[in-house]
Amino acid sequence: MEIKKELAELADRIKSGDRGALARGITLVESVRPEDQTSALTLLAGLAAAESDSVRLAVTGPPGAGKSTLIDALGMQLLERGHRIAVLTIDPSSPVSGGSILGDKTRMGSLVQSDQAFIRPTPSAGMSGGVSHRTREVLTLFEAAGYDFIFIETVGVGQSEYSVRELVDEMLLVLIPGSGDSLQGLKRGILELAELIVVNKADGPNRDAARQAVQDLEAAIRLFESEGQSWRTFIRTCSAHTGEGIGDLVDGIFAYTKFLKGTGAWEANRRKQCVDWLHAETLRKFRQRQDGWTLWEERLRAEERKLNAGQINEYAALAEMLA
Amino acid sequence: MEIKKELAELADRIKSGDRGALARGITLVESVRPEDQTSALTLLAGLAAAESDSVRLAVTGPPGAGKSTLIDALGMQLLERGHRIAVLTIDPSSPVSGGSILGDKTRMGSLVQSDQAFIRPTPSAGMSGGVSHRTREVLTLFEAAGYDFIFIETVGVGQSEYSVRELVDEMLLVLIPGSGDSLQGLKRGILELAELIVVNKADGPNRDAARQAVQDLEAAIRLFESEGQSWRTFIRTCSAHTGEGIGDLVDGIFAYTKFLKGTGAWEANRRKQCVDWLHAETLRKFRQRQDGWTLWEERLRAEERKLNAGQINEYAALAEMLA
Repeated sequence: MEIKKELAELADRIKSGDRGALARGITLVESVRPEDQTSALTLLAGLAAAESDSVRLAVTGPPGAGKSTLIDALGMQLLERGHRIAVLTIDPSSPVSGGSILGDKTRMGSLVQSDQAFIRPTPSAGMSGGVSHRTREVLTLFEAAGYDFIFIETVGVGQSEYSVRELVDEMLLVLIPGSGDSLQGLKRGILELAELIVVNKADGPNRDAARQAVQDLEAAIRLFESEGQSWRTFIRTCSAHTGEGIGDLVDGIFAYTKFLKGTGAWEANRRKQCVDWLHAETLRKFRQRQDGWTLWEERLRAEERKLNAGQINEYAALAEMLA
Repeated sequence: MEIKKELAELADRIKSGDRGALARGITLVESVRPEDQTSALTLLAGLAAAESDSVRLAVTGPPGAGKSTLIDALGMQLLERGHRIAVLTIDPSSPVSGGSILGDKTRMGSLVQSDQAFIRPTPSAGMSGGVSHRTREVLTLFEAAGYDFIFIETVGVGQSEYSVRELVDEMLLVLIPGSGDSLQGLKRGILELAELIVVNKADGPNRDAARQAVQDLEAAIRLFESEGQSWRTFIRTCSAHTGEGIGDLVDGIFAYTKFLKGTGAWEANRRKQCVDWLHAETLRKFRQRQDGWTLWEERLRAEERKLNAGQINEYAALAEMLA
């Protein structure tokens, strides 16, 4: 009862916009202690809206593409339009991010000065390119606290873009011109995930290369756009440094949001994400609660070792598991 | 014991190349009866080689791209080079395939006449674009029967290309020129899955459009190829009808096979597929054997309904599941 009351108070403070309470809430949902996880679920169940009007935007791209500076510039324009901004950044101390060592506060120097913006580094535990398995819960807290425009910065490592895709409404890919014809850090498959693409750092001597890159990308993307498809991928140059193209990008984000809401895809996507999450978590909890699963897992690891050593085929391994 | 002996006999006959025995084996592994599934596992555990030298090639592309005719032409060339061919085709009676209604035997008119080739339509139950959850088991039987070059025909519907990717060593994408600049049925994301691409029906009046399509594809694909990547996607025109380009494609397949084996990627991929399969099957069996899971599933469905109706948020749904 004591705990219930404490959680209700914490929820109220988060909803009232108390930044310290929000930080405590985030610490709670990220905790690995079993008792905290129970409390976190109670807190989240009380806070999450069945419907939410916030926009969750993932910003992905190779290290050095200028994602942080771009989020800073985008965030400032959105603040001016009356939005409240939350950012889940990649911890720059992480070797995977390749970010600066100056810390997030310096990397998003304008946003950090506003009391309408909340910046939170991603914890490195269990993280893959900026996504942890508690990122979804943190987004829920941001929304409950009234932040209606949420950025998630991710760095393109392996599967991270696919994981973040399941947490957000929209995805922005940030590229920069590379050597020769190539685009630095562009990987096959990533284009299908992003509905908004910018070639950043299109200023000074880079301007022409950035424009050429946009033309090449346009040609490539148009080749894959089916006839019935009504959203044409937004592809532009921009410079987070000079501010050129940032206004257009904000307009692009709003246009895409309007498109998604108009077609019903927005709501369908959110629902699907909720249902998928519920299935995955239920299965995880079910396994945790079955005494037998630990034993199965041990045997599974033993069979896996034999399989990897080429001592056994997969069917024999399964037959041994079931015996 | 009776059954064990029967299964051992069936295994021997399959290994000796008895086509009827192979067909019976496939029927057994595809059976949904629990007692058959136990027998199937015993059969497979006895038959599957820990290492196999066969090539599993998925052939995917939109309906009407000429996949069957292409497999027929490729298969004939491989027969001439001493290979034994097995084909898992899409059942042409299925509405999803959009195939001809003439039946597979007519669609692969040359291959069907060889006793070194075995053609099997995919059962439609539980199938998604040509892949069922027993496709892997059927491939194992093909290999045990000595077929060392195996084609899986799939039609590009939603997730089917991603599922088949986990069953095969290589993937061939078959396209045809569409109207305007587009390529018929080409979807974003599919390119990343295919290491071999042909624009088919490059004959007669289509020849120029096919060549142009290859050039456009080349430009798009090169944009996404990273510098360190050593396999450059094979992209050519061909005509399964006239035979033009089929020899080049066979050479391309062998070159890619050699590349994969040389880098160790071949074996690593096969191992990973085995381990992933073992994990998924183990979890499936674990759930089946827990009396409690049926109850959990029922409750999960009830929570899912509330979630979809917007009556509850996902955290509250999970909290109710766990209560």
